Amino acid sequence: MHGLHLIADLHDCTCPAAHLLDRAMLAHFCADACRRHGLTVVGELFHAFTSPDGEPAGVTGTVVLAESHLAVHTWPELRAVTVDLYVCNYSGDNSTAARRLFDTVLAHFAPGSVDKKEVARGHLRI
Amino acid sequence: MHGLHLIADLHDCTCPAAHLLDRAMLAHFCADACRRHGLTVVGELFHAFTSPDGEPAGVTGTVVLAESHLAVHTWPELRAVTVDLYVCNYSGDNSTAARRLFDTVLAHFAPGSVDKKEVARGHLRI
Repeated sequence: MHGLHLIADLHDCTCPAAHLLDRAMLAHFCADACRRHGLTVVGELFHAFTSPDGEPAGVTGTVVLAESHLAVHTWPELRAVTVDLYVCNYSGDNSTAARRLFDTVLAHFAPGSVDKKEVARGHLRI
Repeated sequence: MHGLHLIADLHDCTCPAAHLLDRAMLAHFCADACRRHGLTVVGELFHAFTSPDGEPAGVTGTVVLAESHLAVHTWPELRAVTVDLYVCNYSGDNSTAARRLFDTVLAHFAPGSVDKKEVARGHLRI
Protein backbone atom coordinates (compact mmCIF):
# COMPACT_ATOMS: atom_id res chain seq x y z
CA MET A 1 0.00 0.00 0.00
CA HIS A 2 3.09 2.24 0.06
CA GLY A 3 2.61 4.76 -2.70
CA LEU A 4 2.44 8.29 -3.99
CA HIS A 5 -0.69 10.45 -4.13
CA LEU A 6 -0.47 13.46 -6.44
CA ILE A 7 -3.12 16.16 -6.05
CA ALA A 8 -3.71 19.23 -8.20
CA ASP A 9 -6.28 21.99 -8.43
CA LEU A 10 -6.15 23.65 -11.86
CA HIS A 11 -7.34 27.21 -12.44
CA ASP A 12 -7.90 29.32 -15.56
CA CYS A 13 -7.76 26.37 -17.93
CA THR A 14 -7.34 27.51 -21.52
CA CYS A 15 -7.96 24.12 -23.18
CA PRO A 16 -10.83 23.66 -25.65
CA ALA A 17 -14.17 23.63 -23.82
CA ALA A 18 -14.76 20.04 -24.94
CA HIS A 19 -11.95 18.90 -22.64
CA LEU A 20 -14.11 20.02 -19.70
CA LEU A 21 -17.52 19.04 -21.10
CA ASP A 22 -17.28 15.92 -23.24
CA ARG A 23 -17.64 12.85 -21.04
CA ALA A 24 -16.58 10.27 -23.61
CA MET A 25 -13.61 12.31 -24.77
CA LEU A 26 -12.38 12.88 -21.22
CA ALA A 27 -12.81 9.22 -20.28
CA HIS A 28 -10.90 8.13 -23.37
CA PHE A 29 -8.12 10.65 -22.78
CA CYS A 30 -7.67 9.63 -19.13
CA ALA A 31 -7.70 5.87 -19.68
CA ASP A 32 -5.44 6.14 -22.72
CA ALA A 33 -2.97 8.36 -20.83
CA CYS A 34 -2.81 5.80 -18.01
CA ARG A 35 -2.07 3.01 -20.47
CA ARG A 36 0.54 5.04 -22.38
CA HIS A 37 2.38 5.63 -19.12
CA GLY A 38 2.44 1.92 -18.33
CA LEU A 39 -0.30 1.70 -15.74
CA THR A 40 -2.99 -0.99 -15.81
CA VAL A 41 -6.58 0.17 -16.33
CA VAL A 42 -9.15 -2.18 -14.77
CA GLY A 43 -12.13 0.07 -15.43
CA GLU A 44 -13.37 3.62 -15.86
CA LEU A 45 -16.49 5.48 -14.83
CA PHE A 46 -17.26 9.02 -15.98
CA HIS A 47 -20.46 10.99 -15.46
CA ALA A 48 -21.55 14.18 -17.24
CA PHE A 49 -23.60 16.78 -15.40
CA THR A 50 -26.33 18.84 -17.02
CA SER A 51 -27.44 22.28 -15.86
CA PRO A 52 -31.11 22.92 -15.01
CA ASP A 53 -31.58 24.38 -18.51
CA GLY A 54 -30.18 21.25 -20.13
CA GLU A 55 -26.71 22.51 -20.95
CA PRO A 56 -23.54 20.44 -20.33
CA ALA A 57 -22.14 21.34 -16.90
CA GLY A 58 -18.96 19.39 -16.27
CA VAL A 59 -17.72 15.87 -15.91
CA THR A 60 -16.62 13.77 -12.94
CA GLY A 61 -14.94 10.43 -13.22
CA THR A 62 -12.34 7.94 -12.20
CA VAL A 63 -10.07 5.46 -13.89
CA VAL A 64 -9.59 2.49 -11.58
CA LEU A 65 -6.05 1.15 -11.91
CA ALA A 66 -4.42 -2.05 -10.72
CA GLU A 67 -2.04 0.47 -9.11
CA SER A 68 -4.93 2.48 -7.51
CA HIS A 69 -6.80 5.35 -9.25
CA LEU A 70 -6.95 8.56 -11.28
CA ALA A 71 -9.85 10.92 -10.52
CA VAL A 72 -10.74 14.03 -12.52
CA HIS A 73 -13.51 16.57 -11.90
CA THR A 74 -14.16 19.51 -14.20
CA TRP A 75 -15.90 22.82 -13.47
CA PRO A 76 -16.31 24.41 -16.91
CA GLU A 77 -18.05 27.50 -15.55
CA LEU A 78 -14.93 28.19 -13.46
CA ARG A 79 -12.49 26.89 -16.09
CA ALA A 80 -11.21 24.70 -13.26
CA VAL A 81 -10.29 21.04 -12.85
CA THR A 82 -9.22 18.90 -9.91
CA VAL A 83 -6.97 15.92 -10.49
CA ASP A 84 -5.98 13.09 -8.14
CA LEU A 85 -3.59 10.31 -8.97
CA TYR A 86 -2.78 7.72 -6.37
CA VAL A 87 -0.35 5.03 -7.45
CA CYS A 88 0.83 2.33 -5.10
CA ASN A 89 4.18 0.65 -5.44
CA TYR A 90 3.06 -2.88 -4.71
CA SER A 91 4.44 -4.31 -7.96
CA GLY A 92 7.47 -2.00 -8.17
CA ASP A 93 8.17 1.71 -7.91
CA ASN A 94 5.52 3.39 -10.08
CA SER A 95 6.41 6.90 -8.90
CA THR A 96 8.16 7.95 -12.11
CA ALA A 97 5.28 6.72 -14.27
CA ALA A 98 2.86 8.49 -11.92
CA ARG A 99 4.65 11.83 -12.18
CA ARG A 100 4.79 11.63 -15.99
CA LEU A 101 1.12 10.67 -16.24
CA PHE A 102 0.19 13.46 -13.86
CA ASP A 103 2.09 16.02 -15.96
CA THR A 104 0.37 14.70 -19.09
CA VAL A 105 -3.09 15.06 -17.54
CA LEU A 106 -2.38 18.55 -16.21
CA ALA A 107 -0.99 19.75 -19.56
CA HIS A 108 -4.16 18.50 -21.30
CA PHE A 109 -6.16 21.23 -19.57
CA ALA A 110 -3.62 24.03 -20.19
CA PRO A 111 -4.11 25.62 -16.77
CA GLY A 112 -3.12 29.21 -16.11
CA SER A 113 -2.15 28.23 -12.58
CA VAL A 114 -1.91 25.02 -10.57
CA ASP A 115 -1.94 24.20 -6.86
CA LYS A 116 -0.11 20.90 -6.39
CA LYS A 117 0.39 18.66 -3.39
CA GLU A 118 2.03 15.32 -2.85
CA VAL A 119 1.05 12.90 -0.12
CA ALA A 120 3.09 9.80 0.71
CA ARG A 121 0.62 6.97 1.37
CA GLY A 122 0.66 3.82 3.39
CA HIS A 123 4.07 3.98 4.94
CA LEU A 124 4.47 1.22 7.46
CA ARG A 125 5.40 2.44 10.87
CA ILE A 126 8.31 0.84 12.69
CA MET B 1 -14.56 23.17 -6.77
CA HIS B 2 -13.91 24.34 -3.20
CA GLY B 3 -14.03 21.27 -1.03
CA LEU B 4 -12.57 18.91 1.52
CA HIS B 5 -10.38 15.90 0.75
CA LEU B 6 -10.07 13.36 3.56
CA ILE B 7 -7.28 10.80 3.30
CA ALA B 8 -6.61 7.81 5.54
CA ASP B 9 -4.25 4.85 5.57
CA LEU B 10 -5.58 2.10 7.84
CA HIS B 11 -3.31 -0.49 9.43
CA ASP B 12 -3.95 -3.69 11.40
CA CYS B 13 -7.60 -3.93 10.36
CA THR B 14 -9.48 -6.41 12.55
CA CYS B 15 -12.68 -6.51 10.50
CA PRO B 16 -13.93 -9.78 8.98
CA ALA B 17 -11.74 -10.80 6.04
CA ALA B 18 -14.73 -10.46 3.69
CA HIS B 19 -14.65 -6.69 4.20
CA LEU B 20 -11.26 -6.69 2.47
CA LEU B 21 -11.93 -9.42 -0.12
CA ASP B 22 -15.55 -9.38 -1.24
CA ARG B 23 -15.95 -6.98 -4.15
CA ALA B 24 -19.74 -6.90 -4.23
CA MET B 25 -20.02 -6.50 -0.47
CA LEU B 26 -17.50 -3.66 -0.39
CA ALA B 27 -19.14 -1.88 -3.34
CA HIS B 28 -22.54 -2.16 -1.68
CA PHE B 29 -21.24 -0.95 1.67
CA CYS B 30 -19.48 2.08 0.16
CA ALA B 31 -22.33 3.21 -2.08
CA ASP B 32 -24.90 2.65 0.64
CA ALA B 33 -22.81 4.59 3.18
CA CYS B 34 -22.57 7.51 0.76
CA ARG B 35 -26.34 7.55 0.29
CA ARG B 36 -27.04 7.23 4.01
CA HIS B 37 -24.90 10.30 4.64
CA GLY B 38 -26.80 12.32 2.07
CA LEU B 39 -24.37 12.26 -0.83
CA THR B 40 -25.46 11.53 -4.41
CA VAL B 41 -24.05 8.37 -6.02
CA VAL B 42 -23.80 8.62 -9.80
CA GLY B 43 -21.94 5.33 -10.25
CA GLU B 44 -19.57 2.82 -8.71
CA LEU B 45 -16.76 0.68 -10.05
CA PHE B 46 -15.02 -1.97 -7.95
CA HIS B 47 -12.48 -4.54 -9.10
CA ALA B 48 -11.31 -7.67 -7.25
CA PHE B 49 -7.74 -8.88 -7.64
CA THR B 50 -6.76 -12.53 -7.71
CA SER B 51 -3.38 -13.91 -6.68
CA PRO B 52 -1.35 -16.04 -9.11
CA ASP B 53 -2.70 -19.17 -7.40
CA GLY B 54 -6.29 -18.02 -7.87
CA GLU B 55 -7.00 -16.77 -4.38
CA PRO B 56 -8.79 -13.46 -3.68
CA ALA B 57 -6.19 -10.72 -3.23
CA GLY B 58 -7.91 -7.44 -2.43
CA VAL B 59 -10.33 -4.98 -3.93
CA THR B 60 -9.94 -1.53 -5.44
CA GLY B 61 -12.79 0.73 -6.33
CA THR B 62 -14.45 4.09 -6.40
CA VAL B 63 -17.89 5.51 -5.85
CA VAL B 64 -18.36 8.49 -8.17
CA LEU B 65 -20.45 11.14 -6.44
CA ALA B 66 -22.19 14.25 -7.70
CA GLU B 67 -20.05 15.84 -4.96
CA SER B 68 -16.80 14.14 -6.21
CA HIS B 69 -15.61 10.66 -5.12
CA LEU B 70 -14.89 7.98 -2.54
CA ALA B 71 -12.00 5.62 -3.31
CA VAL B 72 -11.10 2.51 -1.31
CA HIS B 73 -8.25 0.07 -1.83
CA THR B 74 -7.72 -3.01 0.33
CA TRP B 75 -4.56 -5.01 0.99
CA PRO B 76 -5.81 -8.12 2.82
CA GLU B 77 -2.34 -9.63 3.14
CA LEU B 78 -1.28 -6.53 5.08
CA ARG B 79 -4.66 -6.07 6.81
CA ALA B 80 -4.48 -2.56 5.41
CA VAL B 81 -6.85 -0.22 3.57
CA THR B 82 -6.49 3.21 2.01
CA VAL B 83 -9.49 5.53 1.88
CA ASP B 84 -9.98 8.81 0.01
CA LEU B 85 -13.05 10.96 0.19
CA TYR B 86 -13.16 14.19 -1.75
CA VAL B 87 -16.37 16.18 -1.41
CA CYS B 88 -16.83 19.53 -3.06
CA ASN B 89 -19.09 22.20 -1.67
CA TYR B 90 -20.61 23.31 -4.95
CA SER B 91 -24.20 22.72 -3.85
CA GLY B 92 -23.68 23.66 -0.20
CA ASP B 93 -21.25 22.81 2.58
CA ASN B 94 -20.92 19.01 2.51
CA SER B 95 -18.02 18.94 4.99
CA THR B 96 -20.07 17.64 7.92
CA ALA B 97 -21.59 14.85 5.82
CA ALA B 98 -18.11 14.05 4.49
CA ARG B 99 -16.59 13.73 7.95
CA ARG B 100 -19.41 11.47 9.14
CA LEU B 101 -19.21 9.28 6.05
CA PHE B 102 -15.44 9.07 6.42
CA ASP B 103 -15.76 7.95 10.04
CA THR B 104 -18.34 5.34 9.00
CA VAL B 105 -16.06 3.93 6.32
CA LEU B 106 -13.03 3.83 8.60
CA ALA B 107 -14.96 2.14 11.41
CA HIS B 108 -16.14 -0.57 8.97
CA PHE B 109 -12.57 -1.87 8.75
CA ALA B 110 -11.86 -1.71 12.51
CA PRO B 111 -8.29 -0.49 12.07
CA GLY B 112 -5.74 -0.86 14.85
CA SER B 113 -4.20 2.42 13.78
CA VAL B 114 -4.95 5.15 11.24
CA ASP B 115 -2.88 7.82 9.52
CA LYS B 116 -5.23 10.65 8.54
CA LYS B 117 -4.74 13.79 6.50
CA GLU B 118 -7.03 16.57 5.35
CA VAL B 119 -6.43 18.63 2.23
CA ALA B 120 -8.46 21.74 1.41
CA ARG B 121 -9.19 21.65 -2.33
CA GLY B 122 -9.84 24.24 -4.97
CA HIS B 123 -9.59 27.42 -2.98
CA LEU B 124 -9.73 30.36 -5.29
CA ARG B 125 -6.81 32.68 -4.99
CA ILE B 126 -7.40 36.41 -4.68
